[in-house]
Amino acid sequence: MIYLDHNATTPVDPAVAEKMAAFLREQFGNPSSLYPIGRRVKELMNEARERVAGALGVDRGEIFFTGSGTESDNFAIFGTLDAAPEKNELVTSAVEHPAVMESAKALEKRGGKVTYLPVDEYGTVSLDALRSALTPKTGLVSVMHANNEIGTIQPIAEIVRIAHERGVPVHTDAVQSFGKIDVDARKLGVDLLTVSAHKIYGPKGIGALYVRRGAAICPFVHGGRQERGLRAGTENTAGIVGFGEAVRVLEEKGRRERARIEKLAEVLKKGILERIPGARFNGHPENRIKSTLNIAFPGLEAEAILLALATKEIYVSTGSACSEESEEVSHVLRAIGLRPEIARSAIRMSLGRSNTEDDIPVVLRELPEIIAKLRSISAFHPEV
Amino acid sequence: MIYLDHNATTPVDPAVAEKMAAFLREQFGNPSSLYPIGRRVKELMNEARERVAGALGVDRGEIFFTGSGTESDNFAIFGTLDAAPEKNELVTSAVEHPAVMESAKALEKRGGKVTYLPVDEYGTVSLDALRSALTPKTGLVSVMHANNEIGTIQPIAEIVRIAHERGVPVHTDAVQSFGKIDVDARKLGVDLLTVSAHKIYGPKGIGALYVRRGAAICPFVHGGRQERGLRAGTENTAGIVGFGEAVRVLEEKGRRERARIEKLAEVLKKGILERIPGARFNGHPENRIKSTLNIAFPGLEAEAILLALATKEIYVSTGSACSEESEEVSHVLRAIGLRPEIARSAIRMSLGRSNTEDDIPVVLRELPEIIAKLRSISAFHPEV
Repeated sequence: MIYLDHNATTPVDPAVAEKMAAFLREQFGNPSSLYPIGRRVKELMNEARERVAGALGVDRGEIFFTGSGTESDNFAIFGTLDAAPEKNELVTSAVEHPAVMESAKALEKRGGKVTYLPVDEYGTVSLDALRSALTPKTGLVSVMHANNEIGTIQPIAEIVRIAHERGVPVHTDAVQSFGKIDVDARKLGVDLLTVSAHKIYGPKGIGALYVRRGAAICPFVHGGRQERGLRAGTENTAGIVGFGEAVRVLEEKGRRERARIEKLAEVLKKGILERIPGARFNGHPENRIKSTLNIAFPGLEAEAILLALATKEIYVSTGSACSEESEEVSHVLRAIGLRPEIARSAIRMSLGRSNTEDDIPVVLRELPEIIAKLRSISAFHPEV
Repeated sequence: MIYLDHNATTPVDPAVAEKMAAFLREQFGNPSSLYPIGRRVKELMNEARERVAGALGVDRGEIFFTGSGTESDNFAIFGTLDAAPEKNELVTSAVEHPAVMESAKALEKRGGKVTYLPVDEYGTVSLDALRSALTPKTGLVSVMHANNEIGTIQPIAEIVRIAHERGVPVHTDAVQSFGKIDVDARKLGVDLLTVSAHKIYGPKGIGALYVRRGAAICPFVHGGRQERGLRAGTENTAGIVGFGEAVRVLEEKGRRERARIEKLAEVLKKGILERIPGARFNGHPENRIKSTLNIAFPGLEAEAILLALATKEIYVSTGSACSEESEEVSHVLRAIGLRPEIARSAIRMSLGRSNTEDDIPVVLRELPEIIAKLRSISAFHPEV
């Protein structure tokens, strides 16, 4: 198997799986309980919280665990806007993950106003558009750190500078950047930042939201006093411990792995563009997550390519896994100006720790063959 | 260790821990992905969904996984009320879990109206009060199935009959009843029902909400199309698989264990009331979860009793773990008419699978000694 869908999810690191297995066998206390077996679990949770905080350059008390990156995004947006009801305008971008996009649409249904900042051909948000979009009623700016489909990295620090000048807090979804490039919440200057464990070789079902100390935010789940009363409910203790371990492993070998993976991706990118005429690379040439390769093969349907590759046990995706079951054309590829028929022909290959040097020649052999074969049976492929 | 806090959380069943450990090692696919390793995880999730549905007597398509019982309660309440904005009145009871209580308070802050139905001295909701509380603007009735602090079982089927006559949907929080008495959502007639894995020897951080097919409900988390678009975010796949396994074990040995545990609880209850003069039992004499024993020791502080028992490795609680860190007097014990100083003297012992016959004589030796000792140093214990 050659797994090229690390942006959708990552294999659970063996150390994470073992840590969670041991925890599930040995620790069952409720962290809210006052006696030792509860206190012990609380301590282990706090160790994990400390690790996540450390990796983001913030304090433990600023990290709130949630059920997913998506929940963190919802929490950031609705929690912040609810805390200042007189400011019901959200400024976001045209290329956000569905977690932010659908929250924005839900906000519009509630009577809020949303501005979707346009992006250029590489997917970079327009700072001029941001300046024009801010009003005295803007309650939050939410722009992702790196795009999940094309990898483009947004100028978050500049966005923060502009928004803060107008007194507007900023949230960034760093789910795709965390573990792939440096993510330092203080250096970025953001007020809120989303991360998720399953994109960094941790378990699914556990995310976190960084909330800068002093930032105004309302609870997302009401009930007991867990997570300082902002996200009630008995905690996903095993998931939290697994998240902490995934961060530990990331800090141990992340930087070395990063260089190795980026090199593999570069070889793969060059090879595909050389071998397949008409292939079109999408995303910023430089300022992007280097392990993400979004490539269109005009005239074909991406799903046909995906399924043909799957028969060779090569797994890629057609954009975000979160919209995989949808028939719609990628809003990200539309936003960078691709015509729908081109957007529909794009596949995403995202490399990660599971890939080795040996994978690349296999993909560079199979993919051109598949494209050639599909083109030969496709009635409407263009001349290339 | 003698663990008498199964209502707070339960030890993870060894079969559950092993199933989750194997899953974490072997299955990492994203269930939204179109290729085999994603599809496989989707299948395993659906098996778990089928098990949870089967145990509640409903269809797989009516079960939605969430991050906790608390999230399920929030989802049921806000999801239902948001689906019919012209009906912003909630009818609930005075003895609900904080997950419902705090949601109700949040609703009031948003401008909604809440009626808290009173209960009698045993904690049973007044049906007459329910009849008077329903108005054309009532959007939902939410009354728990069994109380977490005193175990009293509510007349849910009657509540449903009364509410449905007026066209009002009903939610019940069955977190404490599921696994301890039969919970059949169709027989109860409810439209929505909450359960949680960690109360039935499954993992923490995974709950479910039954939503009757056809019931109107809005999404709780916005984003991808997971959980039919009602609860977006990559699923807690390991937690879901663990929940399914916990239900399997429950169906295998639940009924036998239930009889054994109830018998132990009865012996413990009788023994305490015989040996400790002035001890006051709280909850319905018959119509309650038999493994829950809430007993007050007037003149003492429950926390002192809890800590003294903990030094003997006997673990009990002072009410709900979800409000354990709070200084407030139990709203449940206040609602059944206890004076604050009596309510503050009550401990909850909740028995479960981890208890054996040998535990009972130990508790019946240690607890009376502790009570006697605390009374001897307490200035204000009453004459008994």
